[in-house]
Amino acid sequence: MKSYRHELWFETPTRRAFVRITDEIVQCVRSSGVREGLVLVNAMHITASVFINDDEGGLHADFERWLEKLAPEKPHSQYAHNGAEDNADAHLKRTVMGREVVVAITDGRLDLGPWEQIFYGEFDGLRRKRVLVKIIGE
Amino acid sequence: MKSYRHELWFETPTRRAFVRITDEIVQCVRSSGVREGLVLVNAMHITASVFINDDEGGLHADFERWLEKLAPEKPHSQYAHNGAEDNADAHLKRTVMGREVVVAITDGRLDLGPWEQIFYGEFDGLRRKRVLVKIIGE
Amino acid sequence: MKSYRHELWFETPTRRAFVRITDEIVQCVRSSGVREGLVLVNAMHITASVFINDDEGGLHADFERWLEKLAPEKPHSQYAHNGAEDNADAHLKRTVMGREVVVAITDGRLDLGPWEQIFYGEFDGLRRKRVLVKIIGE
Repeated sequence: MKSYRHELWFETPTRRAFVRITDEIVQCVRSSGVREGLVLVNAMHITASVFINDDEGGLHADFERWLEKLAPEKPHSQYAHNGAEDNADAHLKRTVMGREVVVAITDGRLDLGPWEQIFYGEFDGLRRKRVLVKIIGE
Repeated sequence: MKSYRHELWFETPTRRAFVRITDEIVQCVRSSGVREGLVLVNAMHITASVFINDDEGGLHADFERWLEKLAPEKPHSQYAHNGAEDNADAHLKRTVMGREVVVAITDGRLDLGPWEQIFYGEFDGLRRKRVLVKIIGE
Repeated sequence: MKSYRHELWFETPTRRAFVRITDEIVQCVRSSGVREGLVLVNAMHITASVFINDDEGGLHADFERWLEKLAPEKPHSQYAHNGAEDNADAHLKRTVMGREVVVAITDGRLDLGPWEQIFYGEFDGLRRKRVLVKIIGE
């Protein structure tokens, strides 16, 4: 069994952002030399997400509005978590979007459907944060 | 290490549907010959879901109503994604339900709890779509 | 390839509860002898969750209020599932929080970010329920 580990670093210039990372994961799969296996891609921070969906700007605007409806950022005082912090909404938004994805590796390639793209979802940005890529297989 | 890959195809006769696929995954585990490992089951489309819950019609009706409340289909014009498309709500609903499940394989069997059943969740049906089953183990 | 399986049992004294289980998973990783691999931690019951987030009481109170807003327990009669049962809301809440997490094992250790803690989320407690820990790797 082979294994491979890599970290991706982000510092988004806005509090919330979606960053496409499919190409970076493809590169990790290549570097790993794994032909058949699984890749785990997870946010290492609890106010960020890794998810798979469409690379379409309109949809990303819909996600932003929808998450603000489900778990509004303001007023900050509505959340018990927001004493020294102001990011309770980011914990909730990331919960909706998910912490991680697991993707198959087949014949040395990321085994994605035709429209599947992997994204980093940031909900409390303006600081350096990480995503973990872990591959196991053969 | 052994690996196994299989696709399940669906074309639901309604826009939204839940289809139980536990038996198909059990069959994949058998065919793989894997005794100890993991099976990844994921929608290959971004308006569909694979999830685990109860095989109970009342609950499925509750899911349908609940998802329509959280992310209503209509009016289509409420979503920026809906220019040429009308399925923005399906992207959001699938986000709530999840893209994938990972299930343990133990002693050659799917290692599920007593009431766990695996479902394909369709939110933009009436077309052919796929689920990927990937198994690794020994 | 090595594999390891363990069950954690819970019986929470309240209908809803969050229980930190990071230490138990660390112990499983040690017992497995796996240095590089993946650990799957999943609820074996469909009204419970395993998720990763912050070990902070204010945030847990926020989760409780937020989930009650998204999928209120009462009136029980609002859900088709609640004939003989009264736990439809628990099925929905667990869907938001997620069934499982997959975590990397690197150099014999659970490969978590600085604030990541693993939790069992109970939404229909007062009875004995299980979490499955499955490890594969080398």
